[in-house]
Amino acid sequence: MAKIRTKHGRFLEEFRPGDVYRHKRGKTITEGLFAVFTDFVFTTNPLAKNRRYAQAYGFRDLVAPPGLVMNVVFSQSVEDVSENGRANLEYIDMRFGVPVCVGDTIEAESHVLGVKASSRERDRGVVHVQTTGWNQHGEFVLGYQRKVQVWKGDLDARVAEGEVPARDVVVELSLPAYDKGRGYAHLAHLTSDDTYFENFRAGDVFEHYRGRVVTTDHIMLTGMLDNTSQVHCNQWMIDEEPERFLGGKLIVYGGIPFSLCLGLSSPDVADNALADVRYVTGRHTAPVFAGDTVFATTEVRGVRDLPARPDLGIVDTILRGHKFVRKDDAAERVEIFYLEREIAVKRRGHYA
Amino acid sequence: MAKIRTKHGRFLEEFRPGDVYRHKRGKTITEGLFAVFTDFVFTTNPLAKNRRYAQAYGFRDLVAPPGLVMNVVFSQSVEDVSENGRANLEYIDMRFGVPVCVGDTIEAESHVLGVKASSRERDRGVVHVQTTGWNQHGEFVLGYQRKVQVWKGDLDARVAEGEVPARDVVVELSLPAYDKGRGYAHLAHLTSDDTYFENFRAGDVFEHYRGRVVTTDHIMLTGMLDNTSQVHCNQWMIDEEPERFLGGKLIVYGGIPFSLCLGLSSPDVADNALADVRYVTGRHTAPVFAGDTVFATTEVRGVRDLPARPDLGIVDTILRGHKFVRKDDAAERVEIFYLEREIAVKRRGHYA
Amino acid sequence: MAKIRTKHGRFLEEFRPGDVYRHKRGKTITEGLFAVFTDFVFTTNPLAKNRRYAQAYGFRDLVAPPGLVMNVVFSQSVEDVSENGRANLEYIDMRFGVPVCVGDTIEAESHVLGVKASSRERDRGVVHVQTTGWNQHGEFVLGYQRKVQVWKGDLDARVAEGEVPARDVVVELSLPAYDKGRGYAHLAHLTSDDTYFENFRAGDVFEHYRGRVVTTDHIMLTGMLDNTSQVHCNQWMIDEEPERFLGGKLIVYGGIPFSLCLGLSSPDVADNALADVRYVTGRHTAPVFAGDTVFATTEVRGVRDLPARPDLGIVDTILRGHKFVRKDDAAERVEIFYLEREIAVKRRGHYA
Repeated sequence: MAKIRTKHGRFLEEFRPGDVYRHKRGKTITEGLFAVFTDFVFTTNPLAKNRRYAQAYGFRDLVAPPGLVMNVVFSQSVEDVSENGRANLEYIDMRFGVPVCVGDTIEAESHVLGVKASSRERDRGVVHVQTTGWNQHGEFVLGYQRKVQVWKGDLDARVAEGEVPARDVVVELSLPAYDKGRGYAHLAHLTSDDTYFENFRAGDVFEHYRGRVVTTDHIMLTGMLDNTSQVHCNQWMIDEEPERFLGGKLIVYGGIPFSLCLGLSSPDVADNALADVRYVTGRHTAPVFAGDTVFATTEVRGVRDLPARPDLGIVDTILRGHKFVRKDDAAERVEIFYLEREIAVKRRGHYA
Repeated sequence: MAKIRTKHGRFLEEFRPGDVYRHKRGKTITEGLFAVFTDFVFTTNPLAKNRRYAQAYGFRDLVAPPGLVMNVVFSQSVEDVSENGRANLEYIDMRFGVPVCVGDTIEAESHVLGVKASSRERDRGVVHVQTTGWNQHGEFVLGYQRKVQVWKGDLDARVAEGEVPARDVVVELSLPAYDKGRGYAHLAHLTSDDTYFENFRAGDVFEHYRGRVVTTDHIMLTGMLDNTSQVHCNQWMIDEEPERFLGGKLIVYGGIPFSLCLGLSSPDVADNALADVRYVTGRHTAPVFAGDTVFATTEVRGVRDLPARPDLGIVDTILRGHKFVRKDDAAERVEIFYLEREIAVKRRGHYA
Repeated sequence: MAKIRTKHGRFLEEFRPGDVYRHKRGKTITEGLFAVFTDFVFTTNPLAKNRRYAQAYGFRDLVAPPGLVMNVVFSQSVEDVSENGRANLEYIDMRFGVPVCVGDTIEAESHVLGVKASSRERDRGVVHVQTTGWNQHGEFVLGYQRKVQVWKGDLDARVAEGEVPARDVVVELSLPAYDKGRGYAHLAHLTSDDTYFENFRAGDVFEHYRGRVVTTDHIMLTGMLDNTSQVHCNQWMIDEEPERFLGGKLIVYGGIPFSLCLGLSSPDVADNALADVRYVTGRHTAPVFAGDTVFATTEVRGVRDLPARPDLGIVDTILRGHKFVRKDDAAERVEIFYLEREIAVKRRGHYA
């Protein structure tokens, strides 16, 4: 009789630079996943809310907000890359391609670009991957790199340190063409009138108005994304060895505050966006736990034209998330998330 | 550098009688929103459960229960009307129009009918609005008035007190025609046999059997409805100034117990309903918090014919919700909800 | 004025051997129910995740995993059979028929096969039923028997003890035909490469890697299934008489750990399954409460051919669920679920 202690997810010593993982499963974005994940984050852009609006703009159907696209691709990589991860360190050069609509099926793969053992801690190291996702027509919807800190399984195992160059995957924003005949102005009341491209100035800092507590619903949300990482859902494992885990509690999967910060910023900076274009870099700067209320701010770093699309402009921003932690009798503001974010925003002159 | 503390929602001094707000976003009722919101309230009417049944009755698809219709319209008005509200005071003359099916897209607008500062408290007043919702074909699905207590933003600001008459919006119940050829009797086992029009007598009081605890899932449900009011989800805000907020805790959005009471009453009084017709008046008589178990009762006030529909009758009821609060060693029954409700119910003679 | 204390669900004295209950409501499996219920359990089989894969295999659309099929049929029987149940004792000879896809509408009925009063406890007894579910085309999707312990309503009422033979309902597995032209090998990277029929040996025991805590989300999940049994959601009722209820807390509906154990086992034994065929017997061996982390193991009892399907084989297994309970300073492993399970698994030779 063979006793098989199954294991899923790789440890540090199992990664090799140059390896390719074709991720399993794939994921159809049902109306169930779409609704639950889009709406809990307070996204306000009608592309993700109102089918009449989305189709009038030339999209096939309701458009997945960027946080959902990111999460659906990212989660497919968890089993191969980070199920045994300790912390996600950095998102790098995340680019959005063709729009993702409700009903699309997304599949993904990752390339190992680098592996490095920690010089200070024997039990961990950093894996650098490049992940790409595409839809049922084979069109790229997302591409990015990330660095993740991964546990070693066997402290004495040899680590295949090294680096390989990133693959040249062209993920390019693709949007329905501007067409005056669509009558955009008749839909203009469905979005804010102060969030067109013309409204933004370099140096503006938006303290977004709303906050939203994260409850234990994060466990179900993470499960719905097929993210199986145990630090988000295995309470027993945490309770047995709390000192091994960040905060000694179930940690909220980073894709939740990532999406939540995007959503909280939405009414002020993305209500009239047609897409997020690129995240130059991003990272989780502190963990989030159930019970934390998440807030966000956006700093506008610049505005610029979008080549070949006179109807749109790019707003370069930094999106930051924060929470408050009570210490003694004072409330300390703790940054939890940092994202350099480029948004393609409608020009009032063309749409309102 | 411009620091912009964004604000959403109006304060009392920003309302003017006669103003019209075309609400932003709109909302497509995806199968995700439909399923989560319909089912958690224990609705039993197969129109909202069973596509085969709904279509046999002549509806396009699964029919949204009245609580979902109300919530989808109401929530669209929150940002413009009550995001900075302290309490919702009254629903008035809520009328249902064409049926709402899964997949429909609902948009809405509100007219300000009245503004009145509180004579006792300088920091608040009452706003009276008329809200109307319609589907993607421009057909009215719901119309009602409501009164809401709203905070002042600036205690010294002038309040534009006054009243204007309600607009004449005709929201009329519209149902598929009765058609003997549909073979209703073959579906009769899918509903209760003791909830036809003939079963109801003025004076009947139903103590509905089931109760349902409200958990922190109310926060996600409220988010899924796009209700962004901070008193339902911003735990940090509440914890900083608990004395400012009802109960000093996150308060459950009224649309949750509203729907839950409708659902709990469903097996006894609405299992054979084709629609809710009108809510003459309604109000939340006490707050609900996570952890409360909600119960409901229905009092039948009268029964009457429905003009031009000999297959249906109207049952006039009062739906009340309650919870129990432990005080010392006793359990006190606290009424949380009151709704004068008219239901269009099938006659057994025509359907069973 | 008639005060009507409504009651739903039968007590022991209301069951009669030979009675047939055509269950009310029916249930359309919307994309909302499908997504929430399928994904929270960590099912990994792409038939339930990836429309492209499911359709390439010849299914109409995403395929409901067996736990969802079971729950949708079972829950329809709760009001008639077990709303006033104390404990579900045993599942017997559960057989799966035609596949259930998202969008299908399932209806069900139950026959009472036996009624028996407890010889030791005057307030309860056992009811034995046979339940069958079918889709909108009248095709059987599931058939099984179960035994449930039910409260008496009136201690002095006569119990109609007796037994009748089971009806001869033929529920037979029906799967899309094997067709080499479908290009299965091009999809092989979407599933694990070590879970084909050829991989299993009698005696293998899999300790499944993942655990998943059950949160209060169990209350919403149970509501979404239309399971109205009060022991899962009526906190007030429990708190008033904790000694009457198992554990003195809201008990998690058995269909949740049932599905969760199936899901946790999925990556190791059902990732390349086309269907679960039959559950010979199953039972909940200990209650689950919010806060428990559920784990699972699978023991392979044997492997055999599937007549007329050379592309598939049957893996006979025992699926067990467990949780850990802390006692003093030790952790005690408590079995919560036992299921004799037959799985139809793809042969690598035909598919990879």
